[in-house]
Amino acid sequence: MSLMNTIGLTCPIVQAPMAGGATTPELIAAVSNSGGLGSLGAGMTAPEVINTQINQIRRLTSRPFGVNLMVLSAAESTTLDTPMPDWLQAYYSDNAIDIDLPDNPAHLFSQQLQVLLDNPVAVASFTFGIINEQQVKALQDVGTKVVGTVNHPIEACAWADIGADAVCVQGMEAGGHRGGWLAASEQDPLGLLTLISQTQAITDIPLIAAGGIMTGKAIKAVQQAGVELAQLGTAFLTTNESGISPTYKNALLQVANSDYTDTDSGVTRLTRLFSGKLARGLVNDYLQTYAKYDCLYDNNTLPPYPQLNAMTKPMRANASKLGDAEHLSLWAGQGVRLVQAESVQSLMQRLLNELNA
Amino acid sequence: MSLMNTIGLTCPIVQAPMAGGATTPELIAAVSNSGGLGSLGAGMTAPEVINTQINQIRRLTSRPFGVNLMVLSAAESTTLDTPMPDWLQAYYSDNAIDIDLPDNPAHLFSQQLQVLLDNPVAVASFTFGIINEQQVKALQDVGTKVVGTVNHPIEACAWADIGADAVCVQGMEAGGHRGGWLAASEQDPLGLLTLISQTQAITDIPLIAAGGIMTGKAIKAVQQAGVELAQLGTAFLTTNESGISPTYKNALLQVANSDYTDTDSGVTRLTRLFSGKLARGLVNDYLQTYAKYDCLYDNNTLPPYPQLNAMTKPMRANASKLGDAEHLSLWAGQGVRLVQAESVQSLMQRLLNELNA
Repeated sequence: MSLMNTIGLTCPIVQAPMAGGATTPELIAAVSNSGGLGSLGAGMTAPEVINTQINQIRRLTSRPFGVNLMVLSAAESTTLDTPMPDWLQAYYSDNAIDIDLPDNPAHLFSQQLQVLLDNPVAVASFTFGIINEQQVKALQDVGTKVVGTVNHPIEACAWADIGADAVCVQGMEAGGHRGGWLAASEQDPLGLLTLISQTQAITDIPLIAAGGIMTGKAIKAVQQAGVELAQLGTAFLTTNESGISPTYKNALLQVANSDYTDTDSGVTRLTRLFSGKLARGLVNDYLQTYAKYDCLYDNNTLPPYPQLNAMTKPMRANASKLGDAEHLSLWAGQGVRLVQAESVQSLMQRLLNELNA
Repeated sequence: MSLMNTIGLTCPIVQAPMAGGATTPELIAAVSNSGGLGSLGAGMTAPEVINTQINQIRRLTSRPFGVNLMVLSAAESTTLDTPMPDWLQAYYSDNAIDIDLPDNPAHLFSQQLQVLLDNPVAVASFTFGIINEQQVKALQDVGTKVVGTVNHPIEACAWADIGADAVCVQGMEAGGHRGGWLAASEQDPLGLLTLISQTQAITDIPLIAAGGIMTGKAIKAVQQAGVELAQLGTAFLTTNESGISPTYKNALLQVANSDYTDTDSGVTRLTRLFSGKLARGLVNDYLQTYAKYDCLYDNNTLPPYPQLNAMTKPMRANASKLGDAEHLSLWAGQGVRLVQAESVQSLMQRLLNELNA
């Protein structure tokens, strides 16, 4: 049986789980009510809030939806002992911003996972790491399909080996954080199509394709490549139901409304500068000013995720308050030029029309 | 009429024009005799030799084939005045290699182009720049289809504006040099699928897709995305008819025969270190040792193409003599894991079987 049928979808579209507030209950429910899979990006959310949000979504839709968590060890979630980089410290003092760091850089994954066992949803997806076979089994026992997120073929095999129902192959085109965990996948991030081909060469686990997909034609393309579902994130960021700030939304729409010629510094890029982990977002002053501290091929000398994420939070909170897009993380995929200001329903309808054309 | 019919192909496969000796007359003829478009990578070849090779190919096939040239100004082709980087100079003296530089770093484009006007072929394709409207017209007047190579949607529009018959959209997955010329496309190289979507959004010039395509499924995928032909390069490098050295061929096959786990430093990467222009190849000692001098996001401080290409030639020639893969440019795309040692006929048959499956 196809993944679409197993989950109970009527179209092959997954709305990407984007942590940080973009995926409101309204957004998720609108996607699910259109026959796709709405998904809550819950990785950075407190366990009790995840539970509340699941219940909110359920009040808005009776259709299946998913929740995504970020796999972190207890030590990673509770340690904030790496020294802040000098240049970041200097930024804070130059701009008179209080460095108000949390006690813990992340919520406990084990507690977040427990919410999904106690209050089961149709799909639980995971990024940043892999869970164990018992955890997969426990989720499946409560009726939840388990989806891993990978950037490398051998990460897909690892999820297949522990009995996951599918993996989301996330190409380098994708916005936001890369979902895999192997350093190998960060050295030369694979483009979506070749990631699909190489993954299919070594495992037959069902695939969900993510990265740069913005049109029905692109969905048909990945289906033809042998993928069951297409996952779109950036396309949903500029919908009316998206929870991102007006500053962030305007920055995305500004790219879409530009004439393709104002791109000498690139539109998006992969960076570690916001969180310590590779993620793709719009190029802004922060990324350009501190580009020399960004680490791609080299050994990563930045504080690891989630520590750097916690350290840049005061800057992002201040920028948010000021409406300053130049110091916000403006996560977006390479397809960002094609975003539109529209309702979820209109986006879904457009995609379905293109799919059926 | 479709591009396939216009050119006179019986299958939607273009063999990428790879300069430097890979595309032997035998390779090109075998592709064209299988119904695809064989292509000579002639950018680094002297005009009179291009003429000879065209005649050699014609003796082996009566089917259409293409020739690719690299667009350089006369000044770029004849200037070698940038100082050699200190680290490269040091490499030469440490390894007692004579620095025997040519008078000119490249052949004259105008003379190469004249060959194609005097001895016309089915398709003339261009990389590294754009020609003018009169040159397009002159080629079309002798019965040649003109194809530009682009990495950015606005480069595609530029070719459409001067009446080119098609453009090859080359995704970041592609091996070898990037065919575009805008700095914008180098700051954040676009993945193939999103490059296709974004190009289609602003021009309807027929597209040829290149970058990471290794299977019939991937060819079907890009066709579904709205592309007429798929261009494969890396897949042809390990064929019996390919002209690359045994050292280079073995390095590619070694990756294909590895178990996907030996990839901590990545398999391929984009680099400027060999030629001054961004190109994708296997990671080897040279790329790793001098990684800190490579320029991606930063302003490029390396000597420009083709000057650095000329400066690294003594190193590559020496490595070639010694069978040392660690100091050769091992151009390869992200799909390199899927190469096989086989004949062109067997590769073409496999692709066609997958295409028709």
